[in-house]
Amino acid sequence: MVTMTEQQGTLLVSCPDQKGIVAAIAQALYSQDANIIDSDQHTDPIAGMFFQRICFDLATSSADRNHLEAALRDVRERFQLHYRLILGAHTPRVAIFCSKQEHCLYDLMVRYRAGELHPGHIAMVISNHPTLEPVAKHFDIPFHYLPITPETKRKQEAAALALLAKENVELVILARYMQILSPELVARYPSRIINIHHSFLPAFIGANPYRQAYERGVKLIGATSHYVTAELDAGPIIEQAVVRCSHRDHVEELIRKGRDMEKRALARAVRFHLQDRILVYSGKTVVFD
Amino acid sequence: MVTMTEQQGTLLVSCPDQKGIVAAIAQALYSQDANIIDSDQHTDPIAGMFFQRICFDLATSSADRNHLEAALRDVRERFQLHYRLILGAHTPRVAIFCSKQEHCLYDLMVRYRAGELHPGHIAMVISNHPTLEPVAKHFDIPFHYLPITPETKRKQEAAALALLAKENVELVILARYMQILSPELVARYPSRIINIHHSFLPAFIGANPYRQAYERGVKLIGATSHYVTAELDAGPIIEQAVVRCSHRDHVEELIRKGRDMEKRALARAVRFHLQDRILVYSGKTVVFD
Amino acid sequence: MVTMTEQQGTLLVSCPDQKGIVAAIAQALYSQDANIIDSDQHTDPIAGMFFQRICFDLATSSADRNHLEAALRDVRERFQLHYRLILGAHTPRVAIFCSKQEHCLYDLMVRYRAGELHPGHIAMVISNHPTLEPVAKHFDIPFHYLPITPETKRKQEAAALALLAKENVELVILARYMQILSPELVARYPSRIINIHHSFLPAFIGANPYRQAYERGVKLIGATSHYVTAELDAGPIIEQAVVRCSHRDHVEELIRKGRDMEKRALARAVRFHLQDRILVYSGKTVVFD
Amino acid sequence: MVTMTEQQGTLLVSCPDQKGIVAAIAQALYSQDANIIDSDQHTDPIAGMFFQRICFDLATSSADRNHLEAALRDVRERFQLHYRLILGAHTPRVAIFCSKQEHCLYDLMVRYRAGELHPGHIAMVISNHPTLEPVAKHFDIPFHYLPITPETKRKQEAAALALLAKENVELVILARYMQILSPELVARYPSRIINIHHSFLPAFIGANPYRQAYERGVKLIGATSHYVTAELDAGPIIEQAVVRCSHRDHVEELIRKGRDMEKRALARAVRFHLQDRILVYSGKTVVFD
Repeated sequence: MVTMTEQQGTLLVSCPDQKGIVAAIAQALYSQDANIIDSDQHTDPIAGMFFQRICFDLATSSADRNHLEAALRDVRERFQLHYRLILGAHTPRVAIFCSKQEHCLYDLMVRYRAGELHPGHIAMVISNHPTLEPVAKHFDIPFHYLPITPETKRKQEAAALALLAKENVELVILARYMQILSPELVARYPSRIINIHHSFLPAFIGANPYRQAYERGVKLIGATSHYVTAELDAGPIIEQAVVRCSHRDHVEELIRKGRDMEKRALARAVRFHLQDRILVYSGKTVVFD
Repeated sequence: MVTMTEQQGTLLVSCPDQKGIVAAIAQALYSQDANIIDSDQHTDPIAGMFFQRICFDLATSSADRNHLEAALRDVRERFQLHYRLILGAHTPRVAIFCSKQEHCLYDLMVRYRAGELHPGHIAMVISNHPTLEPVAKHFDIPFHYLPITPETKRKQEAAALALLAKENVELVILARYMQILSPELVARYPSRIINIHHSFLPAFIGANPYRQAYERGVKLIGATSHYVTAELDAGPIIEQAVVRCSHRDHVEELIRKGRDMEKRALARAVRFHLQDRILVYSGKTVVFD
Repeated sequence: MVTMTEQQGTLLVSCPDQKGIVAAIAQALYSQDANIIDSDQHTDPIAGMFFQRICFDLATSSADRNHLEAALRDVRERFQLHYRLILGAHTPRVAIFCSKQEHCLYDLMVRYRAGELHPGHIAMVISNHPTLEPVAKHFDIPFHYLPITPETKRKQEAAALALLAKENVELVILARYMQILSPELVARYPSRIINIHHSFLPAFIGANPYRQAYERGVKLIGATSHYVTAELDAGPIIEQAVVRCSHRDHVEELIRKGRDMEKRALARAVRFHLQDRILVYSGKTVVFD
Repeated sequence: MVTMTEQQGTLLVSCPDQKGIVAAIAQALYSQDANIIDSDQHTDPIAGMFFQRICFDLATSSADRNHLEAALRDVRERFQLHYRLILGAHTPRVAIFCSKQEHCLYDLMVRYRAGELHPGHIAMVISNHPTLEPVAKHFDIPFHYLPITPETKRKQEAAALALLAKENVELVILARYMQILSPELVARYPSRIINIHHSFLPAFIGANPYRQAYERGVKLIGATSHYVTAELDAGPIIEQAVVRCSHRDHVEELIRKGRDMEKRALARAVRFHLQDRILVYSGKTVVFD
């Protein structure tokens, strides 16, 4: 994996699969003196779709966003291209929602400090409990306590949305946040809210997946990070992790083992998102890892 | 893991959890000059049940089955013990059911020849297609072709049962056998029929699990070996295996990757069974591995 | 795994393999009304050695340590038994040594707070740099800054030893501590100092293992937790973890991926040690997990 | 992964990293109406090298090898390009060398029959023992028995080379072949001989790696597939696989567990090679999987 510098950019592309698309995009970037340093692509022959992620270097180029957009204009029209162009200086702002459980929050914070979530900027922690405020403070991240009852849910979500808007948050991470977001909030951040579900989806949808796993007697448990959609636990899967278990593991042990999987599956998904490695289509993800 | 020799035995025990049970069993074996060489146990505090597997050596003992049974009689009554006593000379006879797919059959045969399925003896291969007869022949295993139509199913199952009875088969392996066994046949071999399901149960029950996995966009696929019960794909799970997949994997690729998991999960389950490492209770397994 | 309560005990045993040893130990515990709730054993036929770990419950027993030791006296003499008897109220005190890298320290602290290191008590953090003092403070653990130069090494180790002695520390964890301990210090804590080495031992012994791995072009990297002995990176291995890598991973990426393995292999080793699951012999470990 | 059809081709490229290389190659292919269906690339910034693998479709193109070579000529000169151009109809011929152990041979054969080694064609099995002739016969592959003593080694290697030459063999697989190839033979097939070593290289180089692993007390064992070079066990690593082990596993158990890793690591390496996914440089591999 290549870490982006300020003089680098990423182009994420999707379009109907057609001949010449790779050459046309490469030519457009080359015309602006952009040097392609990494490229990955995927063709889905059933859906007839083409996807590509290109990282390029502008160190010896004088092109800015306007030049690049202009160079891509023809390609976009000719190939019905959808694209997202991210230039190196961009640092997407991130909000973490959590409740009382601290393992995912600590994990994300320590990774953030180690540079693993580059180029993301964690702008705030929002919680419906005051429990984790000291954690946010320890890492110098603003903490907002928004307690939720059935009566206050609508109002508090509006408050959260106002905070997100004010700080230009582009990605919301649900780090074991124990509230179901309203469809309205979800609709405001399509493919922009990442949740961690503590089971190997689609197994054990809903509440208490570790208890369900215990009762079924499975020999592996897992965790799944996915984009949140209106339908619970049904959003596009980004990453999954599993660990062995046995008859010796009671529910409490499954919870302990599962925490490690939750941390790993969530952190990898967040990292993929922040590095613009994910494209969503047909309820699934393409992850250029 | 310890491989059994002729002078060794295994005792599989289950009973309500009570104080003194471990000492009582150890004492009973010791009284017959049996030397305990391996012991594993499990207590389920919720069910209040105790399970134990003990391997012992009789090299310097003059005890036979009768002596051992006599020594265990008191313990059985005092602790409401259920037990199975397997002595070293026992070689359980095995039948493999298959259809057209050969990967699991070859895998089992090669492992059998390498001694991995010790102390099992593969007595026959039964199939509803003639396709794999050359494989059975190559390994010198009798092959029985029992084609099945809706009209002949009852008759052919009776023929299969007769073959199993005639050869004293104790374990049936469904190595990608593409027929659903009748409840009557299943009832004849409780916890004695091992199936391999090509998904990570309980995800993707039923037909075409790889297609279901493709459509859901999971990032790991798996296989599950389990004892067959009357309810399809719901029997006690013995072993599970998973492998990573990605957006690049179409259904055909998932099938290819899955074959490796099927082979591994099935072979491990068969090995555990033949080594008397499995106890079934509450629809789940205790596997002393 | 069973979490110990105050009324429970653990007996760790090693002796030459002999007939009757299992029954004799079970009988000794039973004579004191101890109820065996978990037992695991291992016989090494080549070394002719027997090892056992027994967890027992004293809820309905009036026995204390003296009673149990008395009951075991005969067995000890008859079978040349070495044993360690740990009663439930014991909370071994732990010191963590670290330098500048924080990932293992945070990981241990968060697990500690979640109860995963039960029954250990983290008594102090010792470091040759002041960098991680805020981390220790955040978790309310005393921090001791003992900077080391070639001239001060002997003196500072003496200071560390004094701190360990004063707090009755029983386990030292080297959580990426970048100093080599003197043979004298190591000799004071035999099988009591756990180190994490950032390679899959015995591959890449010594400095810069991730660079060595990069240069050899391996496809998996790993981490190894082990007890520290006088010979560098040669102590008994407790746990190992690996993760896939590829040509895309430069040294910096290997370091990032490796951190997750270091955390996992170290935490598991510490947990095994604190739960008295490890026996050391012949430069190797028996881990009753 | 995309399976090649007759109308498809693969271009494998390496050259010093320069701006415009991606666009130039894409343009050259596009000029011949080749449609790029898959592309993967890698830049090694330290070595300053660029690598790329491109799969393209010629279904609507009239270009043949000559046209494509002509179109690439300019790019080759301008960028000091080294490339290999493989067109869809090519079926590389393969020879398998083995001795007495059958697990890898069976595994490769069953995969071959399932289409997993496409587009390879297994032309022969060569062995220094007659043991596995029935296996080769069962799969209808010619078997050549070339017994080797110190006196006959030179002569028999010449006989093997003659067989390889006569059948235009392009890839040699050492499937647990227990002879060391002479430097002369190795030199004739650079990056064309794949060996499976039964350890996690660079750990446990040389003889009896499972015994070495047992004596060191590792907690994971592995297998490594690599290209054979003049220096034993030091060739470029293609693939590695590991499995957990414990104090319970004696050497015999490690051998059993290791067989599964050997099969997997070898089969994956062979598959990568036959699909032209591997580039070798600096004693390492780039594997575009």
